[in-house]
Amino acid sequence: MDPNYRLIISCPDQVGIVAAVSDFIAKHQGWITEAHQFADPESQWFFMRYVVRADSLPFGIEEFKARFAPIAERFAMHWEINDTAVRKRVVLMASKQAHCLSDILYRWRSGELLFDIPCVISNHDDLRGYVAWHGIPYHHFPVDLPDKREHFAAVSAQIAASNADAVVLARYMQILPPDMCEAHPGRIINIHHSFLPSFVGAKPYHQAAERGVKLVGATCHYVTSELDAGPIIEQDVARVNHHNSADDMVRLGKDVEKTVLARGLRYHLEDRVLVHGNKTIVFA
Amino acid sequence: MDPNYRLIISCPDQVGIVAAVSDFIAKHQGWITEAHQFADPESQWFFMRYVVRADSLPFGIEEFKARFAPIAERFAMHWEINDTAVRKRVVLMASKQAHCLSDILYRWRSGELLFDIPCVISNHDDLRGYVAWHGIPYHHFPVDLPDKREHFAAVSAQIAASNADAVVLARYMQILPPDMCEAHPGRIINIHHSFLPSFVGAKPYHQAAERGVKLVGATCHYVTSELDAGPIIEQDVARVNHHNSADDMVRLGKDVEKTVLARGLRYHLEDRVLVHGNKTIVFA
Amino acid sequence: MDPNYRLIISCPDQVGIVAAVSDFIAKHQGWITEAHQFADPESQWFFMRYVVRADSLPFGIEEFKARFAPIAERFAMHWEINDTAVRKRVVLMASKQAHCLSDILYRWRSGELLFDIPCVISNHDDLRGYVAWHGIPYHHFPVDLPDKREHFAAVSAQIAASNADAVVLARYMQILPPDMCEAHPGRIINIHHSFLPSFVGAKPYHQAAERGVKLVGATCHYVTSELDAGPIIEQDVARVNHHNSADDMVRLGKDVEKTVLARGLRYHLEDRVLVHGNKTIVFA
Amino acid sequence: MDPNYRLIISCPDQVGIVAAVSDFIAKHQGWITEAHQFADPESQWFFMRYVVRADSLPFGIEEFKARFAPIAERFAMHWEINDTAVRKRVVLMASKQAHCLSDILYRWRSGELLFDIPCVISNHDDLRGYVAWHGIPYHHFPVDLPDKREHFAAVSAQIAASNADAVVLARYMQILPPDMCEAHPGRIINIHHSFLPSFVGAKPYHQAAERGVKLVGATCHYVTSELDAGPIIEQDVARVNHHNSADDMVRLGKDVEKTVLARGLRYHLEDRVLVHGNKTIVFA
Repeated sequence: MDPNYRLIISCPDQVGIVAAVSDFIAKHQGWITEAHQFADPESQWFFMRYVVRADSLPFGIEEFKARFAPIAERFAMHWEINDTAVRKRVVLMASKQAHCLSDILYRWRSGELLFDIPCVISNHDDLRGYVAWHGIPYHHFPVDLPDKREHFAAVSAQIAASNADAVVLARYMQILPPDMCEAHPGRIINIHHSFLPSFVGAKPYHQAAERGVKLVGATCHYVTSELDAGPIIEQDVARVNHHNSADDMVRLGKDVEKTVLARGLRYHLEDRVLVHGNKTIVFA
Repeated sequence: MDPNYRLIISCPDQVGIVAAVSDFIAKHQGWITEAHQFADPESQWFFMRYVVRADSLPFGIEEFKARFAPIAERFAMHWEINDTAVRKRVVLMASKQAHCLSDILYRWRSGELLFDIPCVISNHDDLRGYVAWHGIPYHHFPVDLPDKREHFAAVSAQIAASNADAVVLARYMQILPPDMCEAHPGRIINIHHSFLPSFVGAKPYHQAAERGVKLVGATCHYVTSELDAGPIIEQDVARVNHHNSADDMVRLGKDVEKTVLARGLRYHLEDRVLVHGNKTIVFA
Repeated sequence: MDPNYRLIISCPDQVGIVAAVSDFIAKHQGWITEAHQFADPESQWFFMRYVVRADSLPFGIEEFKARFAPIAERFAMHWEINDTAVRKRVVLMASKQAHCLSDILYRWRSGELLFDIPCVISNHDDLRGYVAWHGIPYHHFPVDLPDKREHFAAVSAQIAASNADAVVLARYMQILPPDMCEAHPGRIINIHHSFLPSFVGAKPYHQAAERGVKLVGATCHYVTSELDAGPIIEQDVARVNHHNSADDMVRLGKDVEKTVLARGLRYHLEDRVLVHGNKTIVFA
Repeated sequence: MDPNYRLIISCPDQVGIVAAVSDFIAKHQGWITEAHQFADPESQWFFMRYVVRADSLPFGIEEFKARFAPIAERFAMHWEINDTAVRKRVVLMASKQAHCLSDILYRWRSGELLFDIPCVISNHDDLRGYVAWHGIPYHHFPVDLPDKREHFAAVSAQIAASNADAVVLARYMQILPPDMCEAHPGRIINIHHSFLPSFVGAKPYHQAAERGVKLVGATCHYVTSELDAGPIIEQDVARVNHHNSADDMVRLGKDVEKTVLARGLRYHLEDRVLVHGNKTIVFA
């Protein structure tokens, strides 16, 4: 894959944004290979994602940033530009269940998903051997402590030490403290089961089975301080029927979880997810 | 279609049920064309649906009932046997939106779904002309009354006068009073939108759009006195994305609603839905 | 809905297209409410669809065309601009089966789909009454003639007389002659069943049932002189199982057909489908 | 999981089959936990699958076989009874791509799928390390030989030496010789991509992209001597659009392939797939 720059912009909508951006790129002979735009009539906010071939431009990413800054300022843009040659660093967090972790590690080692894994963090030691085979550091931080804050302090320190761009909760099964969520807005990706309708309280799959639901699903979202209420990146469902016990639904739900998480992670790695308030614009 | 008898049974699970039923049918040379059974390990309850060719038996449905009664008694069965030559009578109730009603009327007049429609009941007069073209009586009972109970009294009287086997709420948009729900257990079919997660309160589609959901769905269920919490017959979803406004989601939701309602109605008409507590066994 | 202009462009890809187009619109204070672009790396061809609020521009559509022409010429664009206030005229063609026709007519009369229906053409008289109720002219051109060319001559004449922008084959069940297909490139929309794998020859549903397929589908495509091989607009599938007879599969297939055709028609009416060779770019 | 016996029967349909089988089980106090039956009106053939709790019967599986034999003979049954305590032995065959193999190995080591893997056979050495980590023997039989028959002779010998109940072609990418297919009817499971419509010849994904297909799928089937035309066990699809290159479609197809293969393998391991001619009855 030739190196590309991904230019991600969100700003208040007004006349001339596309003209200004595309003119800037065109006058420097920039070759746009992907372009997505969206003007949200509700929020009157504008979003765009351009992918430009790095070798088509007469300058590097730093000079791009310097030259583009005035345009960004004029339109009050929230913006970033990323070099696809620089892989994102993603810390994976898991517990005992390996369905999501195994699926992500396959996509990583097969080169299907391009990113670096500085380490895997878990509150159990069960998956150490499997992770170790991949040559990835494994950190076991027990959670059964008098004060859970010690656990999350250790986790946060490790994430910081890993110089991570993002964190994936691959069925980590622990609720992150609000301050940790707020410290990484749009950077912590979670996957959890979903139902129509949703079932609150314990053993949701058993409630779903008792209600005779015909679909079980999964939602991949960014973590916010409000539990499981963050911006949704991707969702999908699988059919179930009365022959499926609650355990069957858990199993079928796992397949949806790992597929949806993998899609959500890909969108994040490719800078396809823009967040505005609690809404996501996913340029899939 | 040759006339068939549909034998529907649910009872506490124990050894010998299938043997007793199938032996009874076999010794009278009954030809079984469809057979579904399910033993629910949770509730320890047993469910079965047999379809027997009427002309393969030496007697009619009344004698079948008389001869089968002792077996039913021995196993404490809840049971019924229906003659496919006798069409169910289904009252359709609608409001102003016609997407579900039009779809059901097409399936009725094309013979795709076999049932009788004694009348359509609505709290508005908008759909009279369309229903009248089909030669179906249309009853308009206004709901803007000092006391809504008058409305529901008129509706209940009409349903009774129609000698209806079932009622379909094809987007009727009114909450039935508990006593009316309890008067027709497993006989009133409703369709409503569903989301993952579900959104409580007003304008759910707008909430869903604000949250950036990627799926909108619909649930077809039997009405109980607990609002939208009855046994689920069928569900499905459609994909949406950030380009879809709340209005788009409503439109896409309508397509799911009419498809899911049509499937649910078919299952009901063909005696494929067995209810136990709040769970459905759907022998689809 | 406020009147909008839809600008549809396809041309050889090169630097500066978006800049030129967006600059033209911006300098006239044009408000872009929707924007889609796609550069196909395979064909090196560029596609875009802009929706601009008519009242944001200082001139009407004719002056827009005149002023934009030089840009179009510079980039060798195939282009058109449509006023959403001007409804497309779509002739519907059907045979005896009404599932697609009924669904489209519902969406038309409910205002879900905005277009005009100059007439319905059929090779049978069966659906006259239903169409007539909608106040739409119904033309019955029998097909059992010594020379089928007479039939198609009459059909073509009616389409011409109807001043139609598009034709929808809503299960018309007749193969159009090549010259008629070539006379309306990207203007005749067809729906047909599809399978994985596909089954050639007669009674495909029976072949599918014999093979034990688990999915039946439908494909909406533009008609070309090569039978059922035109550019694909939309597709979907429904699950089937061994309980489903070939007739059941036909019925389930019908539900997919009407849903997929309705989606395809919507994309066409909203100028969302761009065709390049045998490939479609659908800005859904 | 308590040990169960799975009784699988197919025979010409006639009155009394269910009565005879269920009476036999009932009179020995057999507890039926799962029951599926299907009478195919097309072929006039009958299929059933009963799961009976082993500890509810007064005798073991051998005596069951001896006592049941007369009933089987009376109805000319093709039948088998399997003890769930005895795991099936499944040889996995792969090439260089690991998406299906990795997914199956996860389900195996996590205990989600209960079976034994005597060995993995490949025509390349690439996956040796990964398989070895699981403690599973890995046999590399090169295929680039003057005579491919040598390769298949070695493969067949290894399968025989492995005392395998089944073989899974997890993207093995080689066409098995007819005699090898015929030696293991209903015992070799393959997964391959599928499209609507299907594309013959080389590079099907590129053809699909050129045609603008909106769905890519996968089919899991039993291998027969007719290439990719064996009885279908399971199928599914994933949506694609014009943004997806042929390579993207390959990637999205892989996700469908591994999910569909895993489902198909589960159905096979649980004796849920009955084959009659080229049709499958899947008691899912």
